[in-house]
Amino acid sequence: MDQRKLPHSKEYLICRNHKETVGAIREMAVRGAPAVSIAGAYALSQAEKKGYQLGSSVNEILDSRPTAIDLKNALDFMLEGMEKGEDSAELAAEWEQSIYNKCKLICMHGAELIKDGNRILTHCNTGPIATGKYGTALGAIISAHKKGKGIFVWVDETRPRFQGALTSFELADVGLPHKIITDSTAGFLMQKGEVDSIMVGADRICKNGDFANKIGTYPLAVLAKFHRIPFYVLAPTSTIDSSLASGSKIPIEKRDGREVLEPAGAHPFPKDARAENYAFDITPASLVTAYVTEKGVSCSPPKP
Amino acid sequence: MDQRKLPHSKEYLICRNHKETVGAIREMAVRGAPAVSIAGAYALSQAEKKGYQLGSSVNEILDSRPTAIDLKNALDFMLEGMEKGEDSAELAAEWEQSIYNKCKLICMHGAELIKDGNRILTHCNTGPIATGKYGTALGAIISAHKKGKGIFVWVDETRPRFQGALTSFELADVGLPHKIITDSTAGFLMQKGEVDSIMVGADRICKNGDFANKIGTYPLAVLAKFHRIPFYVLAPTSTIDSSLASGSKIPIEKRDGREVLEPAGAHPFPKDARAENYAFDITPASLVTAYVTEKGVSCSPPKP
Repeated sequence: MDQRKLPHSKEYLICRNHKETVGAIREMAVRGAPAVSIAGAYALSQAEKKGYQLGSSVNEILDSRPTAIDLKNALDFMLEGMEKGEDSAELAAEWEQSIYNKCKLICMHGAELIKDGNRILTHCNTGPIATGKYGTALGAIISAHKKGKGIFVWVDETRPRFQGALTSFELADVGLPHKIITDSTAGFLMQKGEVDSIMVGADRICKNGDFANKIGTYPLAVLAKFHRIPFYVLAPTSTIDSSLASGSKIPIEKRDGREVLEPAGAHPFPKDARAENYAFDITPASLVTAYVTEKGVSCSPPKP
Repeated sequence: MDQRKLPHSKEYLICRNHKETVGAIREMAVRGAPAVSIAGAYALSQAEKKGYQLGSSVNEILDSRPTAIDLKNALDFMLEGMEKGEDSAELAAEWEQSIYNKCKLICMHGAELIKDGNRILTHCNTGPIATGKYGTALGAIISAHKKGKGIFVWVDETRPRFQGALTSFELADVGLPHKIITDSTAGFLMQKGEVDSIMVGADRICKNGDFANKIGTYPLAVLAKFHRIPFYVLAPTSTIDSSLASGSKIPIEKRDGREVLEPAGAHPFPKDARAENYAFDITPASLVTAYVTEKGVSCSPPKP
């Protein structure tokens, strides 16, 4: 599914070789750390089947998006299996299924944190679209809704790329009441007592629990702490980077300033204006109320 | 100057009667609390000259934008003078000149807070455009630049209406280096140590120093406190509402959700999506480092 075409049309993008798959990741036709890891696993299989040198293919795939670690963990899984002589296409399918299994459990555990009547704020898109199936933070919210809990969702629009549109699309699909807000409205809603909890996904979780996620996550965590609102991070253990002690070492992807300057193709800014466009930010563990992985809910940093 | 046409074209909007002037305020052809107060003063003069009933004209004008108090203070000034038999057009010109005088002094005092090499973050537009002349927060920044201090400005885009475009336009005009960021990028820049101070305007300052300003100001103040970054509020004393003890009583304008759903005319969201669109938020005095009015810099709430 080409996510750039959503929510206005459902179009499928066929990637015939690993270079096209890498392009689809870079251009964000596929996005969301778990979904990207699945695409990356298949990309490596595509490269191997076509006889490309594995080492350089791995680097090509990893270079597509530098911040999320699920992609690297997927390729490590692939390489390990391939070294044992396993079929790369079967390995990719196995990785895909493992992501689905993990997300299904995250939805189950995460839904337990949601009470009837809760108004939950979320950032970016962490639903089925972002993970292939089920979702993480948004998956848990949808799961609680399907269990009959009457909930309401504040959807951050998530500039610059408006992933809130995908979230709204997925919430409308299951009939879950929600409203879109600009990212800087979240603080005022917290002050007014209209947010009961915040649920977000993650792109890389370090050993100490610091994590990278879509730009705009960190200010939400600071505001949540200031207002004593629970702040939950939901991600599969494939998002853990055991090699990094803390968040300051996470490479933060900078993207083209045009994403900021040309919102959804419009041109509100002066022609010569320049923009700084960090795609992610880093939230320290001290601001996290609990982590939800497939293993359950935990206040301490999750282990792989 | 029709601010809706900026930065792409400079067009003047002629308001031939007070109803057209009120419309220009409501539709934000003129915006920025001090500029709105000047337009409002002239609107009342227009109404009086055409023989409209004063009381209902005042209400019409006040209804155009409910949050900023400069507008009411301008009309109070007008009514007081008119009761004494003064000419309404001359009174409006007097109010206009008093705003310019105040802003000129604010720029002078505010510039003193800026050190050579400072990287200043600002939100919304508080330059000459927003005040008729000189500006408040942005005016002080421009004034420091003109004094030869080498400064850099992080310009919040300011969703939903992208007033950051006006700020960028005014900074480019004086050759002041700056970059536009999405509103939710500010927190990460503070964490990285790339913001030395934050300077914003105000739409209404209460007796205790709580103040209303463009939505997104409050989260900046919380983040500034968290990172121990100075947070300055720059506004003329005409922005003070002596009748309100604290911020919780400030009426916060809610605007059409389409401003959120149709960024600069684009359509990134699902067709049936709904949005919540608060135009302002409230920042408590406890988060303010200092207030700058025409009277000078003060850590305690400014007095009219």
